Amino acid sequence: MVINLNNLFNSINKNSKMGDFQDLDHLDGVSISTSSANLYSKKRDDVVLFYFRNGATFASVYTQSKLISENIKWNLKINKKKISALLINTRNANAFTGKEGFKGLKILAENLSLELTQKQKNDEEKPKKIEPNEILFACTGTIGEIFPTEKIKKIIPDLVNKIKYNQNKYIWIKASMGILTTDLKPKIAMEECYIGSKLIKIYGIAKGSGMIYPNMATTLGFIFTDAKISSNILKQLLKKNIDKTFNAISCDGDTSTNDMVSIFATGEVENSNLKSIKDNKLTGFDSALFKVLLNLAKRVAADGEGASKFITIKVKNCKTEEDAKKICFSIANSPLVKTAIAGEDPNWGRVIMAIGKSKVNLNPNKLSIKFGNILIIENGKLSNTYEEKEAANYMKEEKIDILINLNLGKKEFTSYTMDLTKKYIEINSDYRT
Amino acid sequence: MVINLNNLFNSINKNSKMGDFQDLDHLDGVSISTSSANLYSKKRDDVVLFYFRNGATFASVYTQSKLISENIKWNLKINKKKISALLINTRNANAFTGKEGFKGLKILAENLSLELTQKQKNDEEKPKKIEPNEILFACTGTIGEIFPTEKIKKIIPDLVNKIKYNQNKYIWIKASMGILTTDLKPKIAMEECYIGSKLIKIYGIAKGSGMIYPNMATTLGFIFTDAKISSNILKQLLKKNIDKTFNAISCDGDTSTNDMVSIFATGEVENSNLKSIKDNKLTGFDSALFKVLLNLAKRVAADGEGASKFITIKVKNCKTEEDAKKICFSIANSPLVKTAIAGEDPNWGRVIMAIGKSKVNLNPNKLSIKFGNILIIENGKLSNTYEEKEAANYMKEEKIDILINLNLGKKEFTSYTMDLTKKYIEINSDYRT
Repeated sequence: MVINLNNLFNSINKNSKMGDFQDLDHLDGVSISTSSANLYSKKRDDVVLFYFRNGATFASVYTQSKLISENIKWNLKINKKKISALLINTRNANAFTGKEGFKGLKILAENLSLELTQKQKNDEEKPKKIEPNEILFACTGTIGEIFPTEKIKKIIPDLVNKIKYNQNKYIWIKASMGILTTDLKPKIAMEECYIGSKLIKIYGIAKGSGMIYPNMATTLGFIFTDAKISSNILKQLLKKNIDKTFNAISCDGDTSTNDMVSIFATGEVENSNLKSIKDNKLTGFDSALFKVLLNLAKRVAADGEGASKFITIKVKNCKTEEDAKKICFSIANSPLVKTAIAGEDPNWGRVIMAIGKSKVNLNPNKLSIKFGNILIIENGKLSNTYEEKEAANYMKEEKIDILINLNLGKKEFTSYTMDLTKKYIEINSDYRT
Repeated sequence: MVINLNNLFNSINKNSKMGDFQDLDHLDGVSISTSSANLYSKKRDDVVLFYFRNGATFASVYTQSKLISENIKWNLKINKKKISALLINTRNANAFTGKEGFKGLKILAENLSLELTQKQKNDEEKPKKIEPNEILFACTGTIGEIFPTEKIKKIIPDLVNKIKYNQNKYIWIKASMGILTTDLKPKIAMEECYIGSKLIKIYGIAKGSGMIYPNMATTLGFIFTDAKISSNILKQLLKKNIDKTFNAISCDGDTSTNDMVSIFATGEVENSNLKSIKDNKLTGFDSALFKVLLNLAKRVAADGEGASKFITIKVKNCKTEEDAKKICFSIANSPLVKTAIAGEDPNWGRVIMAIGKSKVNLNPNKLSIKFGNILIIENGKLSNTYEEKEAANYMKEEKIDILINLNLGKKEFTSYTMDLTKKYIEINSDYRT
């Protein structure tokens, strides 16, 4: 498949509900290569390698499922402070593949580390030996099929061969497309910020897939920065920011077998030493990281399977954030709400139903509901100003905002989802055929 | 709309995934009438009256939603030991209709009780005055639209006029069709049993609607018996049997604004006095009631919106029933599992995903999974005997059984659901138009 990447890039930006994404370019210490291991019947890039020539500190958050994939088991065993590579494959989740699946990763890690050690010897002044346990894996695809170890192993030399030390926007797009499964658009985001006087880059790519609540299918997110930050602080920063970003598009945390969001810091920028997450110099980085994660998470939701509309649900003035969250996801996960929105029907009764089933204690007489700027329910009653025609018109928009006000407290939460269309059924009843 | 009820009855039975249902006939003390209050644009029966000429003891279970409909508020206020009538309307849920919605029911109750008091005077040797608070209401339909009090009030004389003291199968079908909304088939069940030496009838009708977990739309179930049982014992019997029947097709209890399952006992059969639910003479009744409730609940699931397949999920050998239930509903509510089944794809990986996201503690190496008689996973590994072709063949069946064995304990649970098809999206994005 030959793609004119420039055309593709322009067409993606033009058609995106989420607005343009910026060009990612070179990020010191990160190298990217992509290849096809023929995991799909049609040839496409299906394996992506990120190589950190000088290593990278890192942190990950993983699925909360009780049945986790073999690659997550592998990653959880790594107790290194720095890693050297991240290898991502699509088509096969390596979940429920048993000992063979885990062994496959060991074989790949051994091969890849040998090849990369050779590359170190060729390219570096002070080459270092790369160990198998410096390699992280991300897998996504069908659960329970035999892991294609040999196919992937065969292309490792090609992946390593293709490594260049200068990146441009095209290789980022190739990487972000190489990790897609059923989602249609690459998901890319970037921010720049300062740590002290040093300019720092934060780049990210992601894949979504099925319905937007990741208990339904795999969500992957990978963040890269050239800052110098310890794995320990990265872990805290990631945990702090995941809740209102990637977990705001999820039902109840992360519950596929394979979900994974990771951050890698190459440390190529010699910013000042950071001792703890409370360091004031981290404020800018913290908020830039939040923006990158939120931007990616929204793109995942907007590109949910079959999505025709992007929906933001804001629930405010609750007693607790937990209450706000429960109502958010009760609405976001309601097939009846999502099909009504697909049908451009301002069926606010279904929103009421979803609020009720969340079992959050509320005072119906204080409840207000808005669709965009249109006030529907005020103090528990249909607003005098409400006109269904106006609301029906609003529902034709591509972005729908649902605003719930409980008028009981000061806490709030915002979640993101998409509508539920026939296309979703089509995609998911034909997935493997 | 003129319907040949005999043809209809035959065609329903012929096409039912659930097998035939038996003929309901006369049940002493119950009178039924149906009418059209023009609540729909196309004329159909949309109001159904059950009249108990000598009163009936009764018990109900209601939705657990925090936003309940006005009729449920009304019903909860009734503190009579016997009631005289049940009035059911479709098209309008009388939920989020505020004081006006409640007032509407008061007006209807006043009218209906007057008409029925007059009928008592005309027909009974010892006429009694019927009070407004001897009338129970069930409503189902769209939330938040103004309750059509006047339209329903207008047909009360017609409903009362039509009352006959002898019932036949046709009037039961008419009643069971009069309470439908988007579900296609009437749901009828019956059992006979003995209390002591007395033969007892238990008849039931139900309506489902949207997806089968009633947090998605209204489920109604009405059970009638000619036994003499106190309201207190009825309440205990209903509670005892609802969990593995109507609540086995539901996500987390009953969470629409309007869900309601009620039982009415006319006491026309002079069975021996029953002092408590532990009375041995109740054993037969108890299990017959369970059968009627389960039969109706399954019919609700089988006729879920857009359903092409009926799915039974049995999870056994768990540490607790709660664990079994969590896994049951995690599978039953998974759009990815339900779309795979719609596509006749034996995608057991999605079942694994759904088991994992339930967050129940389990030992993957003890897990077994069967589709029907086909062993797929045995002790956490793909079975040697598994052949995808055979499984793909099985998926073409109309009834699909998914069996999960945790091999950790002795508790189990069974839930019932249907597949998720394009038809579901069609129905629900066009609901109000």
